[in-house]
Amino acid sequence: MARINDSYEDLAASYLFPEIGRRVAAFAKAHPGARIIRLGIGDVTRPLPPAVIAALHRGVDEMADPKTFKGYGPEQGYGFLRELIAEHDYRRRGAAIDVDEIFVSDGSKCDTANILEIFAGDARIAVADPVYPVYIDSTVMGGRAGAPDGKGRYGRVIYMPCTAANGFLPDLPKETPDAIYLCFPNNPTGTVATREVLARWVAYARERGAVILFDAAYEAYISDPSIPHSIYEIDGARDVAIEFRSFSKTAGFTGTRCAFTAVPRTLCGKNKRGETVSLHALWNRRHSTKFNGVSYPVQLGAAAVYSLEGKAQVREVIAYYMKNARIIREGLSKAGYEVHGGVNAPYIWLRTKGGAGSWDFFDRLLSRANVVGTPGVGFGPAGEGYLRLSAFGNRTDVEEAVARIQRMG
Amino acid sequence: MARINDSYEDLAASYLFPEIGRRVAAFAKAHPGARIIRLGIGDVTRPLPPAVIAALHRGVDEMADPKTFKGYGPEQGYGFLRELIAEHDYRRRGAAIDVDEIFVSDGSKCDTANILEIFAGDARIAVADPVYPVYIDSTVMGGRAGAPDGKGRYGRVIYMPCTAANGFLPDLPKETPDAIYLCFPNNPTGTVATREVLARWVAYARERGAVILFDAAYEAYISDPSIPHSIYEIDGARDVAIEFRSFSKTAGFTGTRCAFTAVPRTLCGKNKRGETVSLHALWNRRHSTKFNGVSYPVQLGAAAVYSLEGKAQVREVIAYYMKNARIIREGLSKAGYEVHGGVNAPYIWLRTKGGAGSWDFFDRLLSRANVVGTPGVGFGPAGEGYLRLSAFGNRTDVEEAVARIQRMG
Repeated sequence: MARINDSYEDLAASYLFPEIGRRVAAFAKAHPGARIIRLGIGDVTRPLPPAVIAALHRGVDEMADPKTFKGYGPEQGYGFLRELIAEHDYRRRGAAIDVDEIFVSDGSKCDTANILEIFAGDARIAVADPVYPVYIDSTVMGGRAGAPDGKGRYGRVIYMPCTAANGFLPDLPKETPDAIYLCFPNNPTGTVATREVLARWVAYARERGAVILFDAAYEAYISDPSIPHSIYEIDGARDVAIEFRSFSKTAGFTGTRCAFTAVPRTLCGKNKRGETVSLHALWNRRHSTKFNGVSYPVQLGAAAVYSLEGKAQVREVIAYYMKNARIIREGLSKAGYEVHGGVNAPYIWLRTKGGAGSWDFFDRLLSRANVVGTPGVGFGPAGEGYLRLSAFGNRTDVEEAVARIQRMG
Repeated sequence: MARINDSYEDLAASYLFPEIGRRVAAFAKAHPGARIIRLGIGDVTRPLPPAVIAALHRGVDEMADPKTFKGYGPEQGYGFLRELIAEHDYRRRGAAIDVDEIFVSDGSKCDTANILEIFAGDARIAVADPVYPVYIDSTVMGGRAGAPDGKGRYGRVIYMPCTAANGFLPDLPKETPDAIYLCFPNNPTGTVATREVLARWVAYARERGAVILFDAAYEAYISDPSIPHSIYEIDGARDVAIEFRSFSKTAGFTGTRCAFTAVPRTLCGKNKRGETVSLHALWNRRHSTKFNGVSYPVQLGAAAVYSLEGKAQVREVIAYYMKNARIIREGLSKAGYEVHGGVNAPYIWLRTKGGAGSWDFFDRLLSRANVVGTPGVGFGPAGEGYLRLSAFGNRTDVEEAVARIQRMG
């Protein structure tokens, strides 16, 4: 019988969202009249901006005509989109990223998982706690996590707890990782990293010879002009960082699928003989061997995000979600809760009252306010005692949910 | 410095298509008046069928309205598409594949590469020679290929030569592989497998406990009613085979991106303790952890392929390409060439005359007929002395190319 990848058996059960679903279904069954409001899921609800819709239709029309039909495109993405990204997301922010350093893909989930493939099979990986579960699960699947300790942690992963005590900013690890996942604005805590914080990470990575895997999927939610949108705004980051970006949360592409990853040509690792190897070359090989490019109409749609109308329309949608975030943040603060995040990020990290556990508080919120959040402990042990609320709902639901939580007392 | 995946350094240089490009560019520069016809590339040229175009527009319109907007969909694909696939591609052909055994993805290239992840890190992989290079390259990248021998082969890969002597049908390997890549109708040789041939493979896999990775990307080109379109038309295949399908060559989706993979729930491997493990469960975990579903409008477009109009339109496009294949096959046969494939497959496998090497013949065809093919040796040593021509060009180009080759004498 064919031998399997045993590392898959070390994965923790995919517990969080199925368990939420189970509890919500049970409650709904017992209380058929209750109108349940879901503020747990990190998925957008506003439609695609009109400029994107128009471009998608244009792309579809091109596919109908033999003169404009597109077959296989470049695996790395069409030049028209890569040019726009390099110009608008990087050059205009003073970050020197070239067109051929941009790899267009169908999602940051894929990219943040697949990137590990270009590192050694026994590479040491550092992650924050709490954390987006994909970083951990893909570390485990690739056999880089070591043995599970039975409490949801793995022997060879370097954990960086993020708590109120350190302002939810991970401390520099004492051990030297090969790669470090960082996510700012953060999912799930909503924390942002200042220029100084990022500069400290870049200096650390340069000193230790580690690679920063920088997930900036939520950069569009930054309103404070002093906060960097890209790690490449920091001097020296080109030599130590890979950056993941997505149109999912920026322009509502969660169901349309387009993202990109920047891998600078100056970024290197070493092979077993100690020789320097270009990580850009390795990722280019991976991307062109195992991926066949993003749907052409979707790439046209993504390009429209950079048009004048597209930018204005995206700003409007983000302002809508960020007003939701303010309503949640201020409303719960007024109700006596300790609230983090929700300023330059679409997530609110809510501390439970009286030291309640995440799941106890989840149940209380569900039964007394009929509001669904995401238990913080589901993102890692350091998330215990917190709940993540997202700002992606529609306005009336958000207002109603906050009013109900306030009435809970 | 971060340690890289050393297996990437064992990859052969991606030589074939860049080298073709280089030679064609050099010829074009030296002969600016020559009208070069490309019959080398395996990419479609006809536009998407009108039924697909209409469905894509409908999908885009839904994304514009908050009431019908779609965010994240199921990673495995929407039920509406999986139902259609299970019914039309499987049940109606007598193959018992259930809806939840279908995994919709953005391409068979990704799926045939990524599938190796669920097998042991030292799994033995069998491949045909000549072969679609992605199977080999992804085996190498995952560290499963063993050491390169300097002649383009790897120590732990099990090669199955396909030559005129065995009718381009691989012999059953003497060594026992964990997984075997089979591709029918075949790229590059255009060979098809009868029911008897597939039954022999299924029996072999059952006896040896191997998994068949069956790439059926070209099944839509089968016109002979006795040839199976799916390996699951063979009794017992559910226990030993994973099947890859794509809308790329069926309905012109090479630039639109949609495919699917069938992994039966009855298919198992074993873990290091010798216990039986469901490969369906492993692939489901891989797919939902590292992939976020196919673009919603694209899934609607793929579903339209199964409508009455969609089916009729697809048949028409395939008939167009297959008439090209007949023109090439008959025309070159008349010119005294030994020609294989091109009957139930869009590829023609042309033997060079007088024992010429693939590249010599490529150069002769380019300089004397201004026609570009793909040297067979680029797909593996057993492809030496052959050239692959594809039927995906437009009619006038195909006719002109054949006439020129005939005039070459």
